[in-house]
Amino acid sequence: MQDRVKAILAGLDLWAEWPSPTQRRIVGAALESFAERGFHGTSLKHIAAGSGLSTAALYVHFASKEELLFALSRRGHALARDLVAQAAEGEPARALSVLVAAFTHWHAEHRTIARVVQYEQSALEHGHALEIAALRRDTERIVRDLLGRGVDAGVFAVSDVPGAAAAVLSLGIDVARWYGPRGRWSPHELAELYADLAARMLGVP
Amino acid sequence: MQDRVKAILAGLDLWAEWPSPTQRRIVGAALESFAERGFHGTSLKHIAAGSGLSTAALYVHFASKEELLFALSRRGHALARDLVAQAAEGEPARALSVLVAAFTHWHAEHRTIARVVQYEQSALEHGHALEIAALRRDTERIVRDLLGRGVDAGVFAVSDVPGAAAAVLSLGIDVARWYGPRGRWSPHELAELYADLAARMLGVP
Repeated sequence: MQDRVKAILAGLDLWAEWPSPTQRRIVGAALESFAERGFHGTSLKHIAAGSGLSTAALYVHFASKEELLFALSRRGHALARDLVAQAAEGEPARALSVLVAAFTHWHAEHRTIARVVQYEQSALEHGHALEIAALRRDTERIVRDLLGRGVDAGVFAVSDVPGAAAAVLSLGIDVARWYGPRGRWSPHELAELYADLAARMLGVP
Repeated sequence: MQDRVKAILAGLDLWAEWPSPTQRRIVGAALESFAERGFHGTSLKHIAAGSGLSTAALYVHFASKEELLFALSRRGHALARDLVAQAAEGEPARALSVLVAAFTHWHAEHRTIARVVQYEQSALEHGHALEIAALRRDTERIVRDLLGRGVDAGVFAVSDVPGAAAAVLSLGIDVARWYGPRGRWSPHELAELYADLAARMLGVP
């Protein structure tokens, strides 16, 4: 299981979306400022200062602060969906363990972007919010399908598949809220622990 | 179980902290504005407009915007701790079910205040943040103690009690993030479902 988790995580590069170093600096500065001051407390001046650019130079790359939040949100949600899609393949019990471990590990490591995209979600424009909602539904659907396959195969004992899928995803997502690197667990240790707890929750023998 | 959950929830009145109707109006307007615009996007003018008072009148009751966030955060965290403390009494397996059901139900119903106090946590002043951290530690300790009692009694099979306690709390807390009243479950239905999933996670036979 561990090798597969590692391979999935190694294949997900948050920053690959922005090949230009200037764009990376801008997006990185936006992420830092949103995390520190919130979306509404961030001005383009903060992002310009953080990236070492003028506000005029920012506009070459991003039309607005909301575009930056949307870019971060779309990237974070797309990576989470890709992770879940890759992990969900194969035998259901093993796939579930890989999925929960990789998802938990990812949220422990990428807790800053995960928090920003969760906490500032309501600041997205309507069309952007719809696009993010579609990515979330994709992720949920993949987890539900995996649980359904496991139930059909007699591997999981679950009375409410969508409810169990929500619980499985919650375990990982909420890690971004409470996890700190100086705490009791490494991301890897927490990933193993949560994979075990999720398997029990789904009645894996 | 259901009667005990109902009795605990009925005993928790969020607004009892603020006996004066003026204070309730101010706190309610602050909560609404923090939820809508974020803490950093909220000015005292928004709160004054929302409560129908002048900003000068606000200062009679609260010294700053941060005081209002702290008041909401302390109240929310104290209620969560009280809920958990009451639920944790008695036979461990039953107590665990009551705790998860009540905690889940509370977060589904009070998702607005739960989101604000989670999402805006970093805006608290240092001394206030320490006070909130102490309340969170109390809540975690109560859940860990309950799980420890259950393990000693042979009712729970858990290898990592703090890790399992974090997972149990995550299930309920994350409900505030994703729950919507027009979704698939009523707060009561979700509470029952999550109580069952948590019991399985802890190895209750």
